Amino acid sequence: MRLDFAKLDGLVPAVIQDFGTGRVLMVGFMNEEAFRQTVETGFATFYSRSRGKLWLKGETSGHRLAVREISTDCDEDTVLVRVDALGPGVCHNGYRSCFYRTLRDGRWDVGEERAYNPKEVYGGQA
Amino acid sequence: MRLDFAKLDGLVPAVIQDFGTGRVLMVGFMNEEAFRQTVETGFATFYSRSRGKLWLKGETSGHRLAVREISTDCDEDTVLVRVDALGPGVCHNGYRSCFYRTLRDGRWDVGEERAYNPKEVYGGQA
Repeated sequence: MRLDFAKLDGLVPAVIQDFGTGRVLMVGFMNEEAFRQTVETGFATFYSRSRGKLWLKGETSGHRLAVREISTDCDEDTVLVRVDALGPGVCHNGYRSCFYRTLRDGRWDVGEERAYNPKEVYGGQA
Repeated sequence: MRLDFAKLDGLVPAVIQDFGTGRVLMVGFMNEEAFRQTVETGFATFYSRSRGKLWLKGETSGHRLAVREISTDCDEDTVLVRVDALGPGVCHNGYRSCFYRTLRDGRWDVGEERAYNPKEVYGGQA
């Protein structure tokens, strides 16, 4: 299960897709250790570039991503992880998907309601 | 339609998803000019890191990606482009999607047939 981590300073982009609906939920980055933990634990784990450390998605919110299938692309420098998303939303802003804004007439328009109140989950930080 | 190109040296990852089937077809990178051309022309354009220049997907193969919808994520550092994929396949290896291999028992297994013969499209380079 080789991957090419060299092109992006030790990281690969990881696209997270809902296994049931097919919706793209988020994109994160994995280093080799995050990828290994994702495979071994069955829960998506990323490398946080801002915090400089591994990040088990859902460690604060409980909104974990249970892995159903992992694919890689032709260049082996990206992974696609199809998941069951535990909890009402993946996005820390309260939406089901981080991709809750769509381009319309040159502006990013929010096209859906929040699935949960981020302040109740993350406290004052949301 | 602001995007944050600063986190990744002037690039954002661009996830390409089939509008009809929901399948994730490929992930490329866009710089600001590639994103602008994608919006203005309606065909997905990337920045090729290996070639160091803009790359209209399909310029050789004819397998262009006609944009149906563009979304961004909470951090505005990734785009999701939902497309109609023109031509039999997106991957230069002949498959419908670049994600044609899935992890099974620690190995990347090819789970589908080629949709076209890449040698007939790309010549000897495929």
